[in-house]
This record gives sequence, structure tokens and C-alpha cells, in this order.
Amino acid sequence: MEYEKILPEIVKKNGNKILLLVLDGIGGFPHSVTGRTELETAKKPRMDRLAAESSCGIMTPVLKGVTPGSGPGHIALFGYDPIDVQIGRGTLECLGIGINLDKNDIAIRGNFATIDDSSIVTDRRAGRISTEENRKIVALLSEKIKEISGVKIEIRTVKEHRCAIVLRGEGLQPAVMENDPQKEGLPLKQLKALDRDSEKTAMVLREFEKRVEEILKGADSKAKTLLLRGISKLPKIPTFSEKYKLNGVCIAAYPMYKGVSRLLGMDIADAGETVEGEFKALAELYDSYDFFFMHIKKTDSYGEDGNFNAKVKVIEDIDSKIWQLENMKFESMAITGDHSTPSMLKGHSWHPVPLILKSPNAMPDDVKKFTERECAKGILGNIYSKELMYILLACALKLDKFGA
Amino acid sequence: MEYEKILPEIVKKNGNKILLLVLDGIGGFPHSVTGRTELETAKKPRMDRLAAESSCGIMTPVLKGVTPGSGPGHIALFGYDPIDVQIGRGTLECLGIGINLDKNDIAIRGNFATIDDSSIVTDRRAGRISTEENRKIVALLSEKIKEISGVKIEIRTVKEHRCAIVLRGEGLQPAVMENDPQKEGLPLKQLKALDRDSEKTAMVLREFEKRVEEILKGADSKAKTLLLRGISKLPKIPTFSEKYKLNGVCIAAYPMYKGVSRLLGMDIADAGETVEGEFKALAELYDSYDFFFMHIKKTDSYGEDGNFNAKVKVIEDIDSKIWQLENMKFESMAITGDHSTPSMLKGHSWHPVPLILKSPNAMPDDVKKFTERECAKGILGNIYSKELMYILLACALKLDKFGA
Repeated sequence: MEYEKILPEIVKKNGNKILLLVLDGIGGFPHSVTGRTELETAKKPRMDRLAAESSCGIMTPVLKGVTPGSGPGHIALFGYDPIDVQIGRGTLECLGIGINLDKNDIAIRGNFATIDDSSIVTDRRAGRISTEENRKIVALLSEKIKEISGVKIEIRTVKEHRCAIVLRGEGLQPAVMENDPQKEGLPLKQLKALDRDSEKTAMVLREFEKRVEEILKGADSKAKTLLLRGISKLPKIPTFSEKYKLNGVCIAAYPMYKGVSRLLGMDIADAGETVEGEFKALAELYDSYDFFFMHIKKTDSYGEDGNFNAKVKVIEDIDSKIWQLENMKFESMAITGDHSTPSMLKGHSWHPVPLILKSPNAMPDDVKKFTERECAKGILGNIYSKELMYILLACALKLDKFGA
Repeated sequence: MEYEKILPEIVKKNGNKILLLVLDGIGGFPHSVTGRTELETAKKPRMDRLAAESSCGIMTPVLKGVTPGSGPGHIALFGYDPIDVQIGRGTLECLGIGINLDKNDIAIRGNFATIDDSSIVTDRRAGRISTEENRKIVALLSEKIKEISGVKIEIRTVKEHRCAIVLRGEGLQPAVMENDPQKEGLPLKQLKALDRDSEKTAMVLREFEKRVEEILKGADSKAKTLLLRGISKLPKIPTFSEKYKLNGVCIAAYPMYKGVSRLLGMDIADAGETVEGEFKALAELYDSYDFFFMHIKKTDSYGEDGNFNAKVKVIEDIDSKIWQLENMKFESMAITGDHSTPSMLKGHSWHPVPLILKSPNAMPDDVKKFTERECAKGILGNIYSKELMYILLACALKLDKFGA
């Protein structure tokens, strides 16, 4: 990113506080009957008042037309380039179930699968076994495979046929070809190192695959092998403290967001799993940090479910709690999303997300409502998510003049 | 382009159809008397209704302030970076007159010019000889020069003093310095290879230049030599099918647009030369393709002529035919231009072009008219032409999520 060329020269620490409030998947799409989006439907007088007092805009999370996963969506909000800094799928899976990854660990996504006697994959999801069955198999494997060639192995249930595997040891690199043939009717691929430094990892994984198959041969389950995918490490990136001189904290209910924040060197609040709990944690931690990342998940979850009304309700519920922000002083505060999750599309989408930027140093525009179509008329225009952090820093007077 | 780093991972084929309708040079400029642009003057109720039902915006074809030729304007619309992917002028000239270039061919733009006895260029356009005279000379040269050192030579009239030359043979590369001294009163430059691989081309061209001069010495014409310019090959770029998994067809009246489309692996419709013919071809080909590039030229031609009223009439004429699109279902459809050609400026210009994006997955905004100034208020904002393809793909649900 262009910013990185000049940031060290201009970023400075001061006592001002920044809040980044992420309503996951907040952006929506017009309902086919009413023609109004979730945000246009919800009654949310406090957010609308905030919009009226703020600079508004919309943000493209990654690139126009590109639908981001949660990883790229957040990496961009934190001011990193989401194309340069990619978090591997194995890593994201591990972070998602709360595994505390170290920078040397190899993280892998596992799919239990069925193979026949000649090692042909006949079901890539082992008949979508139940999470309970998954737990039993994982317990069995965990008991029998603890270490291979000095490398510690941790296996954890995710759900149904999915699990997460971590390798911990010396000299491991992640450039190993996956064994997943991608299609049924084909044999497992060989776990081959793609570079020299990854040969030990490949060797350990081949041995791991072999032992898994031996153990599962006799088991009463359709799970007969493991497809090992998204073999990866934490990306190497500067922390918030190194990059922005910020002392940050993450207030989130879901493990994945905590995991990404930990990667960036933020502390992780113990905020429970409710929105109330998160607001409470924010108030309690207010004095101790200068950057607060607060993440609310439910807007996304109901969007994914296609539950328009429930998403509207969550927005109204958040609105009813947002007055609490008025008791705290933030020199700059953004309310936005990591991506859109329109209930009408039942999933993430590429549509830009609305943005409120409240600061004594951000001028109010004509926008009076926090909606996709109103914010698109705001003074900030259509920016990229990866630009937001720098505007937040600027509004908190944390960026010096560039050049004389 | 950033997109290219992630596209292979996310692009997928489905049955949804995309239409890119390009009204060449559609963008205009306010008339000095009325203060209204061509689009603001034309009565075009159907296009305005489409704008009201669509997401609107404006597009910068290449970079702000840069006036594109037809090549860069279209390369960008097709989702390639118009600065990275440049089509040489010789290549564009050949495509423009319908020469079917192969990837190994060397394409050259020729100007007939006058030289004196000591090879000093005295007229770079040979007194702008007539197209008829050009044809006679080209016939003479074609008869006498068919091949040089095993390389086949094709010479074709363009118009007035301009012609196109193609070299066809083994081992030809285009890095050869032009012989055009750029100014009159100077001698022809030597056709020198700029790299080793282009030495054969340079040798053939020097011999070609010599023979042309020998033949023209006795001819009754001011044309005494050929300035050889824009020596180039087709650029190597992925086709639509490789890049987007799209099965595309070009519906255009002018050879150049067909040539560029052929370069991208599109089929070329036999649509005749009228707008009626193009709409008819679209309907007939509807079932056979999933991407349709339809190009209407006349908006540009009248703009170039400075004929404000004729450009207005063409817009109204297109509007009267556009209802035919309603009989066909496109999951995403863009109506826009490759650049502006304001009648007031009598030529291409750098002004952004208005854009209508119609799709069940693109939300309507407040814009009710297809004009430069109204579309600039649309929810898409001011994007770059090279981004449009990705938004079209997204709206046709042809892009998977990026990252987990």
C-alpha cells in the first residue's frame, strides 16, 4: 500500500481515542416487496442522528464487484491491503474456533472423507457426519496421534465433517500441496512440498495421513481419511502498535475476530457473547486503550440466514444501546461493516457498505440517515475499506504533515 | 491489475447472461447556447426509465484527464488495464480495415510520403493523395512485392495517404525503429532493430522500403516512399473464455471493434451495418452466448463531426429501439460509452462517461435520467472503466467469495 511508504514518517502517538464499530455484514439490499433495505426499514433514530452529525460515505471492502470473506473484510478495515495480506483458510479455521496460534505453527483445515480400498475418494464429506460423531473420531485420533517426528499435533472438531489441525515444532513451512483431489472418484493427491523449507511439513503430513487411515479403518464411521486443506501460517504483518503506535483492544463475541485482532497485537477483552456485554466492556476498558475494535456479529448471521426481519430487529436493538457511546469521548469513531450481507442474497455480497465517521474534525454533510443509498451521497464518497484507518488516525490528529 | 491476482480463484461459469452495450463516444458537453449536453437534449424516455430502475454512475475510461483512443477505451471496458495492455497503432489500423491478424503477424501503419533525390522527406502525406490514387499505387505495389526473404507481404489501402502493411512469416518480432523522421526536411530514419529478435523484421522492412521506392520512382504520383509506423503485433492477453469463463460474441458494425473482440476470443456476429441489424443479431444469438458486446458507432461519428443535432438524433433513434432489450433477460447489463466525444469539442475527450447498470442484483438509486450530470449522482460513484467487467460479473453471480 502507498500509505506504508510514508506512514512511519508521519504517524504519532497522542492521548486521543479511536473507536471502530463493525456491524458485521451490515450492508443490505432492497426487499422485493417494500423496495427498502434492512437499514432503510429499521427504526434507528440514534444512528440516523449520528449520521446527520457526521461525515458519511460508502466503502468498497476489497475491489469493486468482489465479495469478501470475513478475513479480507477485516484485514482491510484494519488498514492492510486485503490482497497482499491474505490469511490462509487453515489459519482462519483455527482462529475461528479459538485456537491460539503461534507464528511458527502450521494451521490446516481438515475434511473427513470416505475412501474405498484403492484410496479413491468416494465422498469428500464422509456423508456429512454429525458434529457428535466428529467429536468421537477426533478424540480417538487425538489419543493415538500426539506427535510425529518431534512435531506436536493438535486436532480439533469444527463441525459436521470439518476439523482443524495444528502442527507445532521446529522448521515447518506451509508450502505443501493439498491432498484433496477436489472431485470424487479420484485418488488422494500426494502431500508434496512445493519448496525445500516445507519438506519437513510434507513428510509429517504424509505420515499423519497414513496413521489417520490406519486408525479409521476399523472405526464405525464413514470417515476414513482426512482431506488436508488451506495449509498455512499466520501472515507476517506489523502489529497495530508497530504500524500505528496504537494500543488496541478487541471487543468481540466470536473467536475468529479475536484471533485476527490477536495477530495484530491487540489485547482481547473478556466481553461475553452479548451486545450488552460488549458495550459494558467498552466502558470498562475506556481508560486503558487508545484504539477500540468492537465487533457485532448478529447482523451478518441473520443476513446469511436470509432473515430480513431479524436483521432489522438486530439493527434496532443495536440502535437502542448506542446512546452509551455518548458517555465516552472518541476523537474519531467509525460505524460501518466489513462487507454487505443482504438477507435477499442470503450471503456476503460485493455491495459497498455504509460508513459514519464521527469526529470533531470530520465535517457533517447532508446525509441524515445511516443507509446504503443515503451514505452514498456523503462527503467521503466511495472509498476503500483499507483507507478508513488512515482517516480515523487523521481525525484523531495522529498523523503529522507529509513533506515540508 | 489487482483483480488478476484473485480472479482465477473466484470466477465461475453459470448460465446467466451479460450485455455490454457501448454507445461509442456517448458522453457530451453542454451546448454553448442551451447549456445542455447531447444526452440532456435528446428525448429518450426508455433510457431514462432504465436509469431510474438501475444503479448509475460515471466512468473514467483510463485516468482522470486522459482522452482515450478507441483501443484503450475498449480494452478498459473489457476489464484489462488500458495502460498495461496497449494495442499498437499498426495493429489497430489493420484491425480497423478488417484484416484478420494472426498472433505472429507484424502489423504496420503506412503513410505515403514524398522524398527528394537525396531521400529528404519533403511531404509526410504526399500531398494527401486521394483514396483512389492510393488504391492504384497499392495495387501496383501488391503486384510487384509479394514476398521478401520468405516473408509474405500484404499491403492494403486505408484512405488518402494511409495504408496498412502486414508481414507474415517465421521469426518476426516488432521492435523496429520507425523510418518516419516526424518532420519534413529531414531524411528517412534507418529501420533499425531494437532487439535481436527483431532483426529479421528490420531487414525485411529495409528491403521493402527500397523496393517501394524503386517502384514509385517512375509512378505518376507524389507518393515516393512509405513512412512505416506503429510496427507492432497483437498483444498477448488472456481471452474472455480464459479470463472470465465467458462465451462472448461481438455485435458491431465497424471492423476495428470486431478486431479487438476477435483478439479476446469472442465470436463475431454477422450483424450488417445498421443499428436495426445489431438488435436483430442480438435477439438471434441470445441463446448461444453468455456475454454480448454490442457496439453502436454513430454517436461517436457525429460527435467527431461536431454535429450536435445529429448526435442528439442518433441517441433518440437508439432509444426508440431499446425496448427490444426487454424481450431478453440479462442478469446484468451495462449501457455506457468507451469515452466521451462532445460535439462541442469535435473529438474524443477525457470527460467521464455515464453508466447504467441494470440487474436484479444492483439496487436502484435516485437517478432518473441517463445523462452525464445525473449519473454522476448515482450510487456507483465515479469508477474506472476497467472495473466495470467485475461489477457485471458480480451482478450475474459469476464471482465467488474471496477468502474465508
